[in-house]
Amino acid sequence: MTDTTSSATTVADVAATAAHAARAFARASPRERGAALVAAADALDSHAAELIAIAMRETGLGEARLTGEVTRTSWQLRLFADAIVDGAYLDARIDDADPDYVIGPRPDVRRVLEPLGPVLNFAASNFPFAFSVAGGDTAAALAAGCPVVVKAHSGHLELSRRTAQVVAAALADAGMPDGVFQLIEGQQNGVDLLQDDRIRAGAFTGSTHVGRLLADIAATRSRPIPFYGELGSVNPVYATYADAELLQGFVTSVAGSAGQLCTKPGFLFVPSDADLSSVSATAGAVAEHRLLNPGIGRAFAGRRDAVLGAEGAVVLSAGEVREDEAGQRYATPTVVAVDLDTLRAHRDELLEESFGPLSIVVRYDDPSELPALHEELFPGNLTATVHARPAELADGSLDPLVDALAATSGRVLFGGWPTGVSVTPAMQHGGPYPATTTDATSVGTAGITRFLRGVAYQNAPQELLPAALRDDNPWGVPQTRSAAGGSADWGSFAR
Amino acid sequence: MTDTTSSATTVADVAATAAHAARAFARASPRERGAALVAAADALDSHAAELIAIAMRETGLGEARLTGEVTRTSWQLRLFADAIVDGAYLDARIDDADPDYVIGPRPDVRRVLEPLGPVLNFAASNFPFAFSVAGGDTAAALAAGCPVVVKAHSGHLELSRRTAQVVAAALADAGMPDGVFQLIEGQQNGVDLLQDDRIRAGAFTGSTHVGRLLADIAATRSRPIPFYGELGSVNPVYATYADAELLQGFVTSVAGSAGQLCTKPGFLFVPSDADLSSVSATAGAVAEHRLLNPGIGRAFAGRRDAVLGAEGAVVLSAGEVREDEAGQRYATPTVVAVDLDTLRAHRDELLEESFGPLSIVVRYDDPSELPALHEELFPGNLTATVHARPAELADGSLDPLVDALAATSGRVLFGGWPTGVSVTPAMQHGGPYPATTTDATSVGTAGITRFLRGVAYQNAPQELLPAALRDDNPWGVPQTRSAAGGSADWGSFAR
Repeated sequence: MTDTTSSATTVADVAATAAHAARAFARASPRERGAALVAAADALDSHAAELIAIAMRETGLGEARLTGEVTRTSWQLRLFADAIVDGAYLDARIDDADPDYVIGPRPDVRRVLEPLGPVLNFAASNFPFAFSVAGGDTAAALAAGCPVVVKAHSGHLELSRRTAQVVAAALADAGMPDGVFQLIEGQQNGVDLLQDDRIRAGAFTGSTHVGRLLADIAATRSRPIPFYGELGSVNPVYATYADAELLQGFVTSVAGSAGQLCTKPGFLFVPSDADLSSVSATAGAVAEHRLLNPGIGRAFAGRRDAVLGAEGAVVLSAGEVREDEAGQRYATPTVVAVDLDTLRAHRDELLEESFGPLSIVVRYDDPSELPALHEELFPGNLTATVHARPAELADGSLDPLVDALAATSGRVLFGGWPTGVSVTPAMQHGGPYPATTTDATSVGTAGITRFLRGVAYQNAPQELLPAALRDDNPWGVPQTRSAAGGSADWGSFAR
Repeated sequence: MTDTTSSATTVADVAATAAHAARAFARASPRERGAALVAAADALDSHAAELIAIAMRETGLGEARLTGEVTRTSWQLRLFADAIVDGAYLDARIDDADPDYVIGPRPDVRRVLEPLGPVLNFAASNFPFAFSVAGGDTAAALAAGCPVVVKAHSGHLELSRRTAQVVAAALADAGMPDGVFQLIEGQQNGVDLLQDDRIRAGAFTGSTHVGRLLADIAATRSRPIPFYGELGSVNPVYATYADAELLQGFVTSVAGSAGQLCTKPGFLFVPSDADLSSVSATAGAVAEHRLLNPGIGRAFAGRRDAVLGAEGAVVLSAGEVREDEAGQRYATPTVVAVDLDTLRAHRDELLEESFGPLSIVVRYDDPSELPALHEELFPGNLTATVHARPAELADGSLDPLVDALAATSGRVLFGGWPTGVSVTPAMQHGGPYPATTTDATSVGTAGITRFLRGVAYQNAPQELLPAALRDDNPWGVPQTRSAAGGSADWGSFAR
């Protein structure tokens, strides 16, 4: 057990440390917690050069991409700080006592969202900053008032340790309790800690296989806990036309970060008469890019072989996978085209996510088949995208397709490409299984609710109420008040 | 397969019917759905006499209790109607496109909460109206826009069928789509339907044993779904004193509805020198009450034997359990007293919930032991209650206990008794496992979020956006807008 952020030496110690921190951390005001998040953001920014150098060596990702990722990561800490500071997220509700309540005298009842308790966050391989030690799940859980334990991804251990030191020191300097942030390493330690009763929620970004294993562990504990996993997504794109510009955008989206993005478009549907001849040159012009680590490289090579081997798949760009002496693989984009019959006949080889620079163009004859086909083949995705001309969008012909995409996806795009997820108040990065285990979002401020639970106080003396529920409202949070009287009229709008 | 509410004849038909209804129902405006809920409430009220007569025969519950329960049930439909009509629950968020967004140009992103899809609701035995066919889970799911299938409880089948007819007809008359409400019967049908991919969430009120079985089924589906189960709770009460009035209130709360309430106080902690002599007479004065059905009667008799047989348990009121020829059991209250050592030594016999008129008084010497003891023995409850004098509440000595109760319970009461849960905007009826599977509330309007999921639309043409996200806002819902510009200043409050 290596823990660079506290003196804990066993998984049980880590759990005890987190549980001990939970009470004190929960008592911090939103403003105090927000200021600590900003302090962590400032610390990340001031260590950016050092951290990026480590990340480049460990992940093979480029400097520009990683620089942007650090900016995104520190900035999403600030975004969460801003999101909590007014206390609206606490959803403070106050029901005044009401002797005339229709179903019998109502006591004084007040409800607020309180932190769930210690959260175990399994970091991702592909975003060593934004979905890792100080990433979105960590920011959301800390913003909610939950101590966080991050299980470092083995693909960037040195970076994880150094980031954790920077973050833990910043939080401590900002007055947050000891143990509010810890790092652990090792698969078995992660599994053991997930089974500890003191851990109250799990978060994860990674493969469907590993995510489901962990989700099952969380669900089968003697006391089950919520597990917020972001697993697999193939992000289909439906185009009513395919010109060279669209195909260029497609290849760029598939090739970025060597396709190792959860929102990479894995399928592009185009009319069967579309001219796909430009794909070969566009894809062929992409420089080779290292895959994140030997395991991901091996898995990608296997998926690529399966797709290329599917009978009926027409190779638009074969791409290449090269292995060096250290076992690292370097890839250029692979793009194949299939028709609908081939896709249906070879769904085992074709439908599974290929994590890397590979995508499948699907030719269709009859656009009216697409909504039902989509629901059959793609029941759960982070994103789905429509490319159509304005007149087609306006004439209602695409409504059934848009309905099908909204029913099965977390985010529906009109034009553009699903990669490059923005972090905003309205973002939804989560969709029906297997995109996520729970439909919750792991990007954007709406994700904070994952780590909160409602607690009601009945007839409590003012001095024993949480600050957000007091009549004198010391934190100045929005309070929704249900006044006494008038309950007999509820529902009267319908008369 | 009996389905009195539609022509569906198999579980697969029921699922298909619900799935078909889902799209049309989701398109209804909050006002239209609210009006349909009010219509269902009106229909229940106008059939109250007929329904109560059936319920009395099937459940053994009294007319006054059932009359109050119908009022509560119809009224909670009206409460949900009122709660959704302004559309605030949709949490509509609009991010304006922002070319200067700090992490890169932001597209126009808009997010709204949409219904999850068909919900399967397993009805409870003990509230044949309020937690059954047209009860709180049904009201919440319909309010959210989800078609509902209720699995009838075998303890009141005739009532379930008749209630379902009344509700289904009212919803249809109000213009809601066919199949928006269905009833099924039979344990195996319930299990089969829970495994159907078209069911998107489960809800349940009942025993820990059955609830956990169903939760495990929901979690182990190839596509897992959320399962909102309200399982077991023993609702401990901590008193710093015990006079005759307090003990009278305790016995009344334990005996009401023959103790067959999820919030019955199963434990009352009192100082070891408390005079408990009044309990015998108070409990002895309670008339016998039929238990809900032979299965519950048998289980209660078994639990009572185990508690009475625990070495060290002092009988304050033995009570009685009588069985008639039909296998129905009739009970009067059983109350025993133990000290802390006995409670710890016999936790297997004593700690499990006894569903019926039985409670355990626990004598303690040192009040400072109670917070740690509570967290050890009672990790998850719907409620926890403190009875203390005002000076004791004010001097801070009870703060650690209140902290412990809030960390382990959904509702913390100061004085009064946990039975008689009010239905209000601020109510929380759900707590850490095993009180509920997810901490979510199954009473009150906050429970609507269980049946919603976020969907974001990126750069969508106005005419393809859901009504709640359009600039012309035809439903007039609150929209939270994140304007372009200024993102560089986020988090600046901390400077």
